[in-house]
Amino acid sequence: MKAQWIWYDGDYELMLLNQSLTQRYERDVFIPPFWRMDYFHTNVKFSYAFTLTEAEDITVLASGKFNIILDDVKNPTGAYVRGFNGVLHVEPGSYHMTVSVYNTQTVPALYVSGKTVFSGKDFSVTCNDFVHVQAGCCGFTDPNEPPTCFRYTYQPIEPVSEQVQGNTVHLDFGRETMAYLQLEGLAEGRAYVYYGESEEESTDRENCEQTDVILLSESSRTPIAKAFRYVTVDFEGTAPQRVRAVREFVPQERVSSFTCENETLNRIYKVSLDTLQLNARDFLLDGIKRDRWVWAGDAVQSDLMMYYSFFDVGVIERTKSALPNREPQATFLNHIMDYSLYWIISLSDYYYYVGDDAFLKKAYTVAKSIMAFTESRKNSQGFLEGRPEDWVFIDWAPLDNRGAVSSEQIIYLKALSTMITLGETLGEDISAYRAEYQRMKAAIDEVFWDEQSGSYVYALYQGKKSEQIKRHPNIFAVYYGLIEGARAERIKQDVLKNESVEKITTPYMRFYELSALSELGETDFVMNEILSYWGGMLALGATSFWECYDVTKKGAEHYAMYGRKYGLSLCHAWGASPLYLIGRYLIGLTPACKGYTSFNLRPRRSSVVGDYKASVPMKNGTLEISYGKTELCVLSQGASGTLYLPADTYDLPYPIENGEYKVPICDGERYCIPLISK
Amino acid sequence: MKAQWIWYDGDYELMLLNQSLTQRYERDVFIPPFWRMDYFHTNVKFSYAFTLTEAEDITVLASGKFNIILDDVKNPTGAYVRGFNGVLHVEPGSYHMTVSVYNTQTVPALYVSGKTVFSGKDFSVTCNDFVHVQAGCCGFTDPNEPPTCFRYTYQPIEPVSEQVQGNTVHLDFGRETMAYLQLEGLAEGRAYVYYGESEEESTDRENCEQTDVILLSESSRTPIAKAFRYVTVDFEGTAPQRVRAVREFVPQERVSSFTCENETLNRIYKVSLDTLQLNARDFLLDGIKRDRWVWAGDAVQSDLMMYYSFFDVGVIERTKSALPNREPQATFLNHIMDYSLYWIISLSDYYYYVGDDAFLKKAYTVAKSIMAFTESRKNSQGFLEGRPEDWVFIDWAPLDNRGAVSSEQIIYLKALSTMITLGETLGEDISAYRAEYQRMKAAIDEVFWDEQSGSYVYALYQGKKSEQIKRHPNIFAVYYGLIEGARAERIKQDVLKNESVEKITTPYMRFYELSALSELGETDFVMNEILSYWGGMLALGATSFWECYDVTKKGAEHYAMYGRKYGLSLCHAWGASPLYLIGRYLIGLTPACKGYTSFNLRPRRSSVVGDYKASVPMKNGTLEISYGKTELCVLSQGASGTLYLPADTYDLPYPIENGEYKVPICDGERYCIPLISK
Repeated sequence: MKAQWIWYDGDYELMLLNQSLTQRYERDVFIPPFWRMDYFHTNVKFSYAFTLTEAEDITVLASGKFNIILDDVKNPTGAYVRGFNGVLHVEPGSYHMTVSVYNTQTVPALYVSGKTVFSGKDFSVTCNDFVHVQAGCCGFTDPNEPPTCFRYTYQPIEPVSEQVQGNTVHLDFGRETMAYLQLEGLAEGRAYVYYGESEEESTDRENCEQTDVILLSESSRTPIAKAFRYVTVDFEGTAPQRVRAVREFVPQERVSSFTCENETLNRIYKVSLDTLQLNARDFLLDGIKRDRWVWAGDAVQSDLMMYYSFFDVGVIERTKSALPNREPQATFLNHIMDYSLYWIISLSDYYYYVGDDAFLKKAYTVAKSIMAFTESRKNSQGFLEGRPEDWVFIDWAPLDNRGAVSSEQIIYLKALSTMITLGETLGEDISAYRAEYQRMKAAIDEVFWDEQSGSYVYALYQGKKSEQIKRHPNIFAVYYGLIEGARAERIKQDVLKNESVEKITTPYMRFYELSALSELGETDFVMNEILSYWGGMLALGATSFWECYDVTKKGAEHYAMYGRKYGLSLCHAWGASPLYLIGRYLIGLTPACKGYTSFNLRPRRSSVVGDYKASVPMKNGTLEISYGKTELCVLSQGASGTLYLPADTYDLPYPIENGEYKVPICDGERYCIPLISK
Repeated sequence: MKAQWIWYDGDYELMLLNQSLTQRYERDVFIPPFWRMDYFHTNVKFSYAFTLTEAEDITVLASGKFNIILDDVKNPTGAYVRGFNGVLHVEPGSYHMTVSVYNTQTVPALYVSGKTVFSGKDFSVTCNDFVHVQAGCCGFTDPNEPPTCFRYTYQPIEPVSEQVQGNTVHLDFGRETMAYLQLEGLAEGRAYVYYGESEEESTDRENCEQTDVILLSESSRTPIAKAFRYVTVDFEGTAPQRVRAVREFVPQERVSSFTCENETLNRIYKVSLDTLQLNARDFLLDGIKRDRWVWAGDAVQSDLMMYYSFFDVGVIERTKSALPNREPQATFLNHIMDYSLYWIISLSDYYYYVGDDAFLKKAYTVAKSIMAFTESRKNSQGFLEGRPEDWVFIDWAPLDNRGAVSSEQIIYLKALSTMITLGETLGEDISAYRAEYQRMKAAIDEVFWDEQSGSYVYALYQGKKSEQIKRHPNIFAVYYGLIEGARAERIKQDVLKNESVEKITTPYMRFYELSALSELGETDFVMNEILSYWGGMLALGATSFWECYDVTKKGAEHYAMYGRKYGLSLCHAWGASPLYLIGRYLIGLTPACKGYTSFNLRPRRSSVVGDYKASVPMKNGTLEISYGKTELCVLSQGASGTLYLPADTYDLPYPIENGEYKVPICDGERYCIPLISK
């Protein structure tokens, strides 16, 4: 066993979030978030009780100013250790140790290391509110490296092309990256750096989104890692030097793979992996260039992509832990009502895919207080309505979100069902949530369902229902499985597959739309959408997927957003959603039990895809599948589960249940099933 | 008009409180507070709308990283100012300026100065919770001095005696002070400093409470100002140098005076002034040596002393503003239930003595949320009961504060009446407070009043009333004027003046006891108590009044507390209570209206005091009084008021009302009234 740095649980993540959210620059302009940020507790107290059978020297280090009380349990004096020199020599006996640590710059932290006494999760800590919780830690074992920042991995990268024109260097690193620039060789004067995710951006000195000015006598590298593929460096007065980049990233130990008969889809899958990895850093960022912020709504989509690609539980937990307010809740997450509810809903995904009890218990406590805070937004009819200080977002589209927005109510309903199912497993009292769920479900059906159009109307404002049919509430109703078959069919025909209904334009909402269509069995349709939309970006040379893609635009027009020539993010996490759509709906892998101890596998075939091979991570292992025309092979390592195949397609020697063959898959055994069509 | 540094209202005070509460050391041991401390908002946004008729250069400075949006109201773009060089050149027109400032070390602050545009209270600010409040400021007009700390005044002071023995210097500065040590002359090696409020402490190197070690090659002064009268400095290896002190203090522009025929009382008054001034610094500290913390319960007593001595509204407002939690309230002030209620009660004093509307409005909002938080501590009978994380303090004495403590209910009742009276003047809805007041008053009388003993019983725990009669609840009932004449008389005879009832031993509770007795007209009794208790400390050479004084102790025993030889504070704010007892009850001056626009004067005579002369500050002036055997002279400058004299004592040509002569006193006119006894 080894000593770890410990802190007030959650505060390391909160400190990182403060650091991370303040790395955003628009050229020379510093841009902090525009929602309320909480700060970590600066004054905390650690406690630990222990017994020594022989004398021990115990090293005590703190990140911050600190004091120590070491009380002999038989004769406690509460006296502070005076003249402390770094090591406590402790005689045999039973003790209660208390260490108070104060730090306003980085999270107050403690490191205790003796022969038998080590700081770790069995220490308790209080923010001096007299409530003691388990200390937080995450493997900082080096006494010389207290938890002051996030620790990235660095790797020098070479440009694929380099052009020197006079005092200017143009570089292309071949693909989107997040890196520092390193200027090699002696120099004076200034270097002016213009970054670009596109070549057009890096050569447009006036309008590119990111710039740096380096005073060469003081530094030879840029201050923070930035997102780019191309870079232009103008050297003032001096001859250009060798410019190289140092990539800053989080190495991923695991990665999924997918190959099929469609080369475009294969490339879409690989570029999706690159896109997600670039945005999976200290937190799950929305995009690495312009925003580089953490949005709960984006992050819960990234969670799902993560579960089907790198399965990086660390970044998922850091993000979930840091986003909510300090208790008591005073605002919504990112001040957005729907994002707060998504955060709650995502806990049920976490439950199945990861399922760490300690994390779930903490998160459920926060979820309860978010739900309590949400209560304060009920209108006289009992529907959620945003206050002026709230953002009712739903989608980045021209939407009138005044009054009671049905999507918000449907997302709330799903959050309620999450509180119920999680609460049950955690032994919480869920009667109130259950009652509220019943009331809300009935109210939504009564007020928002429109039998004539076969859809949920968008909103109810000042007693008037919105007339124009929108896809949003109907997408959520299907995706969250909150409606019955007949109604689902109507939504599918009259809304989702109805060309006359206004299209969804953002990849953010496409995530839910294509998932809903997949839920409705529209595999070919969804795969074709992926090929046209994501394939369209590839055709334009994308090395990572974009915040938004509009097929009608031409050339550099694609890069414009928010009225800025290069405002668009060309590496946006939500662009990686094919990872989820393919993993969950084509390969059809889902956890069957908490913590992925068993799985369900419902692989589908699509004429667009043809035969495919894939390897997908599970919590404790990997599932490999190869789905050919005449044979389906499955190897699961790390969990047993069940394979489901359609009884109407094949003629197989397995028992049939609800129209599906049920094939038990045992951990570690390879199954190859000859496929005899009916 | 001049530009001022501005910040999120209340955050400058909160930052100072964090700085102030972390200045406590026990020898080399750093001791932060043991209750939850909030931190200022690190990320705030200032807004200001203005119109220019001619072009103007506007300087913008920030304490922290910042950005500026300057929107032309006719054509707002929301674009950030790029390449900002410190000055905005703004053409004629109408603008909306937004400046975001981020700072984690000191309060994010803004300074804007042009020809017509100046940062000040007409700027609004948000902590990005989308609620905009008036910016805070307090006269920081120097662009080079952002609000990073509290600004004290410094003054070199000379010792009254100096002894050199070998490598050691012993100094006596003649009186208690708060100062740095300055070591003059070149030197090497270390200097070991031992401070003492008493000579015994400063020469007891092992046990003195405060020490410093100065590495002479690095510094010639001690790191922070400390409380002492005596100091011993051991020089390591080198010859002793000249040691001087630099006093750190807040100069007081105004000061009251009192002289009477009793010399001891005159000295008590002067030493009380010294004691209070030493503790009135960035905040109203409880004591400058050991604790040097800010406690709401102590501070509200200091407020009242302040109103009768220096009338330093700044320190009163800073203290009131910084003590409560950030919204929403999560703990009690200093985690003490009664202290939180005192804080509310003290607002009614503030209303009469100072009465600044803006401050009252803000404070009332906080008071409402403290009251709401207090609701969570109601037991099944509707009485307040502390939770494990709360401290039900009442007094520093052996008290059993489990269950419903009657003093707590009575203080709560007074807080309720404060919410009602203040709420009325502020146009708030007070119906709920009124109903709660009625319920609580009835419940207290029914459950806690014991007709047989003529007293309020101490507590109700597990259905059982405490048997031993205690003074505390009865003191509060009288002092807060919550009982009728007959009951008050019984409490006076059967409790307060009943020798067999356990005595109050702490000056903290003596403040309320002697005030209650004064309310009951016991002037001679109270003056005698002052002479014996405070006079006792003077007789032992006190130059400031102590945290506690026990007549039965001998010599250095007096200095011991908390099991430490010199644990006692010899300069404790509550020791200055004679300022209040004399000002309010002997001189009898009280404000009659909000903000002291008129006063009531009910001077008393006491055989112990004899003739007296006094000058007492009012908000907008001073009241001078000279009360002789044959003549009473009054001069008020700054307010008109009414003088009341007892009709049963004198024969005077004034109208009588309720047994008192009523003499109108006009602002600026001197009155001398010949006193003809009956």
